[in-house]
Amino acid sequence: MVKVGIIGATGYAGNELVRLLLGHKDVEIVWLGSRSYIDQKYSDVYRNMFRLVDAKCLDDNMDALAKEVDVIFTATPQGLCASLVNEDILSRTKIIDLSADFRLKDVKIYEEWYKIEHKAPQFINEAVYGLCEINRHKVNKNTRIIANPGCYTTTSILTLYPMVKEGIIDPDTIIIDAKSGTSGAGRGAKVNNLFCEVNESMKAYGVGTHRHTPEIEEQLGYAVNRDDIKLIFTPHLVPMNRGILVTAYANLTKEVSYEEVKAVYDKYYGKEFFIRVLEKDVCPETRWVEGSNFVDIGFKIEPRTKRLIMMGALDNLVKGAAGQAVQNMNLMFGFEENEGLKMAPLFP
Amino acid sequence: MVKVGIIGATGYAGNELVRLLLGHKDVEIVWLGSRSYIDQKYSDVYRNMFRLVDAKCLDDNMDALAKEVDVIFTATPQGLCASLVNEDILSRTKIIDLSADFRLKDVKIYEEWYKIEHKAPQFINEAVYGLCEINRHKVNKNTRIIANPGCYTTTSILTLYPMVKEGIIDPDTIIIDAKSGTSGAGRGAKVNNLFCEVNESMKAYGVGTHRHTPEIEEQLGYAVNRDDIKLIFTPHLVPMNRGILVTAYANLTKEVSYEEVKAVYDKYYGKEFFIRVLEKDVCPETRWVEGSNFVDIGFKIEPRTKRLIMMGALDNLVKGAAGQAVQNMNLMFGFEENEGLKMAPLFP
Amino acid sequence: MVKVGIIGATGYAGNELVRLLLGHKDVEIVWLGSRSYIDQKYSDVYRNMFRLVDAKCLDDNMDALAKEVDVIFTATPQGLCASLVNEDILSRTKIIDLSADFRLKDVKIYEEWYKIEHKAPQFINEAVYGLCEINRHKVNKNTRIIANPGCYTTTSILTLYPMVKEGIIDPDTIIIDAKSGTSGAGRGAKVNNLFCEVNESMKAYGVGTHRHTPEIEEQLGYAVNRDDIKLIFTPHLVPMNRGILVTAYANLTKEVSYEEVKAVYDKYYGKEFFIRVLEKDVCPETRWVEGSNFVDIGFKIEPRTKRLIMMGALDNLVKGAAGQAVQNMNLMFGFEENEGLKMAPLFP
Amino acid sequence: MVKVGIIGATGYAGNELVRLLLGHKDVEIVWLGSRSYIDQKYSDVYRNMFRLVDAKCLDDNMDALAKEVDVIFTATPQGLCASLVNEDILSRTKIIDLSADFRLKDVKIYEEWYKIEHKAPQFINEAVYGLCEINRHKVNKNTRIIANPGCYTTTSILTLYPMVKEGIIDPDTIIIDAKSGTSGAGRGAKVNNLFCEVNESMKAYGVGTHRHTPEIEEQLGYAVNRDDIKLIFTPHLVPMNRGILVTAYANLTKEVSYEEVKAVYDKYYGKEFFIRVLEKDVCPETRWVEGSNFVDIGFKIEPRTKRLIMMGALDNLVKGAAGQAVQNMNLMFGFEENEGLKMAPLFP
Repeated sequence: MVKVGIIGATGYAGNELVRLLLGHKDVEIVWLGSRSYIDQKYSDVYRNMFRLVDAKCLDDNMDALAKEVDVIFTATPQGLCASLVNEDILSRTKIIDLSADFRLKDVKIYEEWYKIEHKAPQFINEAVYGLCEINRHKVNKNTRIIANPGCYTTTSILTLYPMVKEGIIDPDTIIIDAKSGTSGAGRGAKVNNLFCEVNESMKAYGVGTHRHTPEIEEQLGYAVNRDDIKLIFTPHLVPMNRGILVTAYANLTKEVSYEEVKAVYDKYYGKEFFIRVLEKDVCPETRWVEGSNFVDIGFKIEPRTKRLIMMGALDNLVKGAAGQAVQNMNLMFGFEENEGLKMAPLFP
Repeated sequence: MVKVGIIGATGYAGNELVRLLLGHKDVEIVWLGSRSYIDQKYSDVYRNMFRLVDAKCLDDNMDALAKEVDVIFTATPQGLCASLVNEDILSRTKIIDLSADFRLKDVKIYEEWYKIEHKAPQFINEAVYGLCEINRHKVNKNTRIIANPGCYTTTSILTLYPMVKEGIIDPDTIIIDAKSGTSGAGRGAKVNNLFCEVNESMKAYGVGTHRHTPEIEEQLGYAVNRDDIKLIFTPHLVPMNRGILVTAYANLTKEVSYEEVKAVYDKYYGKEFFIRVLEKDVCPETRWVEGSNFVDIGFKIEPRTKRLIMMGALDNLVKGAAGQAVQNMNLMFGFEENEGLKMAPLFP
Repeated sequence: MVKVGIIGATGYAGNELVRLLLGHKDVEIVWLGSRSYIDQKYSDVYRNMFRLVDAKCLDDNMDALAKEVDVIFTATPQGLCASLVNEDILSRTKIIDLSADFRLKDVKIYEEWYKIEHKAPQFINEAVYGLCEINRHKVNKNTRIIANPGCYTTTSILTLYPMVKEGIIDPDTIIIDAKSGTSGAGRGAKVNNLFCEVNESMKAYGVGTHRHTPEIEEQLGYAVNRDDIKLIFTPHLVPMNRGILVTAYANLTKEVSYEEVKAVYDKYYGKEFFIRVLEKDVCPETRWVEGSNFVDIGFKIEPRTKRLIMMGALDNLVKGAAGQAVQNMNLMFGFEENEGLKMAPLFP
Repeated sequence: MVKVGIIGATGYAGNELVRLLLGHKDVEIVWLGSRSYIDQKYSDVYRNMFRLVDAKCLDDNMDALAKEVDVIFTATPQGLCASLVNEDILSRTKIIDLSADFRLKDVKIYEEWYKIEHKAPQFINEAVYGLCEINRHKVNKNTRIIANPGCYTTTSILTLYPMVKEGIIDPDTIIIDAKSGTSGAGRGAKVNNLFCEVNESMKAYGVGTHRHTPEIEEQLGYAVNRDDIKLIFTPHLVPMNRGILVTAYANLTKEVSYEEVKAVYDKYYGKEFFIRVLEKDVCPETRWVEGSNFVDIGFKIEPRTKRLIMMGALDNLVKGAAGQAVQNMNLMFGFEENEGLKMAPLFP
């Protein structure tokens, strides 16, 4: 059994890691780190885990933890993982970081958009950007550190990647209008995330300034060997618990038929277990992926304006966080890639 | 007292008309038409009206109704108003049509997008497109028929109009990503609108084919004397009762400052009672307009991609339907334009 | 114009007071007190009030305020009003207290259930329990201080009062199962009230210990001249913004017919503007009272167990807080009792 | 592999059966019956099953089906299973009926409360009431037909059973106030279940007349060998997808301590996998059981009125329908009782 530690176990992504790992036949959770709830029973913080998890929350001592476990998941705020990790730790254990610390390869862009100094830039290059369907070949038993992509970026990149890579759309015209359930905002006690503030409302936020923008630009840039793609990414808050829906727009580079576009998506994703390219004229809906690691993708050609409308949906806590982290872990330890992740979506 | 009849009184927009007209000091509702609930007490269909409305639902005999009332509101499916109206009726009463029958000035476009034959094309030119803040000068005591704009179009056009009119944005690059509460889908008994199907989910629909697209194109075209503007309009369904949020994108025609764009919005809307141009960096949220006739508008310049992001929010049943209809009625009868519509938004 | 000050203007009940008072033709708000948001624009805290309220938030200096206004609403946590009020203040202005400070007439019970010392017990007897439909005769121009009943108690007492008073039910067998929307929990930043914690869930809380229990017991006791009624009151949290639904159970004292029970309700409420006794077999639903000052009441005789099931619904922020406070103000100043409160419920 | 057929596969409980059975290692679904969607792809009706279920919907020919499968689940309206079943079918296959047809042992009570004639009364006695934690000893490889209890009854009976059985409460004083998520209302296209009608509202329904009442009475009667228990059961509709919360009240028969009551619950449920008796003062919340087969139970002694307040929560589609059906299947075929049902609750 692979021994697992989680730092940041009492956030929503941490709890989802616990849920998924409880259903994984090859792992055992031995450390639930939570600075806020130290010494409290985990199941008093998340009562869904009553009788399923007996442990108390521990601190976030990564040095001690590295001696006890085979892999550490860090589901923590930006900056924490980078401030704790070091060569000694990485020589003992693997790290799957759910924060943004190792996602951006240009440390200047990280520091500019996140407004914090990066404490471990020496590991940025080593860290694999763990978008499995695109970087699977880079994740194996030798991988020591994974930068696990977040919910907005996973949806956006997977939805756009084949179209950019194959030159179907002009990458300089991309507009991503993204909608997220509220669990993406975390479990912090903030007025803006109270039930009565979110319920029965919808808004955009971080317009023109959201920190996932450069990450999407960088990753799509790799598809075409460019580092200067600029796009618009506008996130919105939706009154639902889970789910990301991305509606993306871009200019077509040429006249294309439905079949041609479909064939490109199928070329990249046709054999993927977790990516479901939908049938003609079917739009993704977040209800159809809830609780699962699936990504649903659909598209529509708009001939009047010569644009392509691409849509993707996933569960932000699963494929957008904990599920993808487990998928990476499976690759790192040589398990079946979908072990512990085969569950069908829960509806309604 | 102006005597009012409503055809389609048992839809959501019809019920909202009743709510607003009950609070209007100069009108009296004398006819509640509803083919589906004929002879039933209105307050058995909408129990919020218990003890406030004693009447039973009547049929939709527009001829009979025209002899009894000063103005008829038709809150009915497309095609009904056009099939009932005639010169005799218009000689006796005014009509404010909340359906799409008289919104599009090109009957071919109407028939192409709505897939029905127009039964009264002779009144299309006479009908005033009742977007009061833009067409106020055309609505007065002589106006016989109003094509009352719907929720998506009102939000979209008001958000974009000054920018198009003053050449701030290139109208051939407009993308409108719109999000709507579920009351916009009406009160018909459909599986897709059941609580469990809508709740905890989000989706796009009518992608590339929604019938409000040509209406927005036509109205924005008037701003620049063009009839060939083509834009993308993508509606989404949101798990909330009321509210429309529009996020619109377009290329800037030149470099502009925040102050310049703000000045343009203020030029058009600074004195409008119902349009609130928000302060810098404040994004519209549907919760702040619920239950009211206000439209909140905000924007953000995105210098990296040289685009403008424009956002608008309103309550789809008020400014997007019944409230705007009452506003038009006020203009048609010479009342204060905001009579019966001054209520503050209800929050939470 | 009556000049009004609000202490605690940035809570949900405070914002609702502002909404209602803006629609009241005889008052002017001159002081918006909020310790948390002092010197901030009120409309930055509640953007629904943008362009409708220009004032900044002031402190809660009741002495200064008493010199400027005719009436003070205190929508503040328990204990604050009692700690500020004094004879000098009451000689200058009226107070309508939306907190529990003056509701319980036995100061020992107050201190036992609220766990705080009462700072102004000398005003308890003078304060009128402002449940207008029952105590209207006690509220007039000479009234200096009103203990405005809260949402749970208003619903519970109004639903049960006629049945207790007329001996239809045995008051020693009352069980009140109450359900509340989340705005009743206030606007404080607490994890338990986050969207994701409340949404898609339901729970009881304060079981057997909720502080509204003795208040209901006391008020129902007055109906039968007893001070020893003991009942069960169980509140529940519901994933909706507004609304209280009470389902109450009690043993019938004798065999009764539907008509007899209905006649008793009509005797007490038949002429009340704000209480709507529903028709046979119609159950109250919170959607039908939202945004209004109405209370809907229904009942069902259960002959198999010889019990009566009584149900009541209201909007917790209107009739359960701000609306009832305005109703009391109207009585205190000799206005029409329903001035500013005539609006129809908003649906959906 | 056990071969499974589902009749009524396109209702919410049917879809939940599919979800659970896909995760069960010993079964294979070979027949998805749905009269409404015959010949349509199942994954076009429930897109969560896209790429997971390839089959088309078949009819509800139970004779044909019985020849192909080892067990049939009927998730159909009342009356259908009884109208189809016969000795020949039962000689070939097992039936787990999720409808009410075989739950009530007194056919007169069935016909009185359900208003339909029972078509197969000869099997009523044979059918085991499949509340596994109470009737486990009756379910084994010889069992041919299971009457699978519904959501309200499972929650109510499990919450009350030990207290009635051990004489802690007086069964003639029981009041059950139950709250249900909307999936319990089914997937039929009805105005009352539209999003805008359910959202932001709460109501009681079927007050004094709900058909689950006699079923709870009968089952609790078995605990004390009585057939004349009469209780009150009041269901309420809550704006959430899943979840049942029961708050039950009854008179204590004697003075009891917390420890005594807890010991009784532990005596019955301490070793049960699916029943979690919560710790002191912890109330069940539906969010903590969502997506799982767990039932959470808590209680509070109310000494002032000498009553016991008992609370239970479960997921209506899992333990209240499909999960319990799978649990029964596991017992009938000698599998581990929790096979396919071990998943942790999904939160948020």
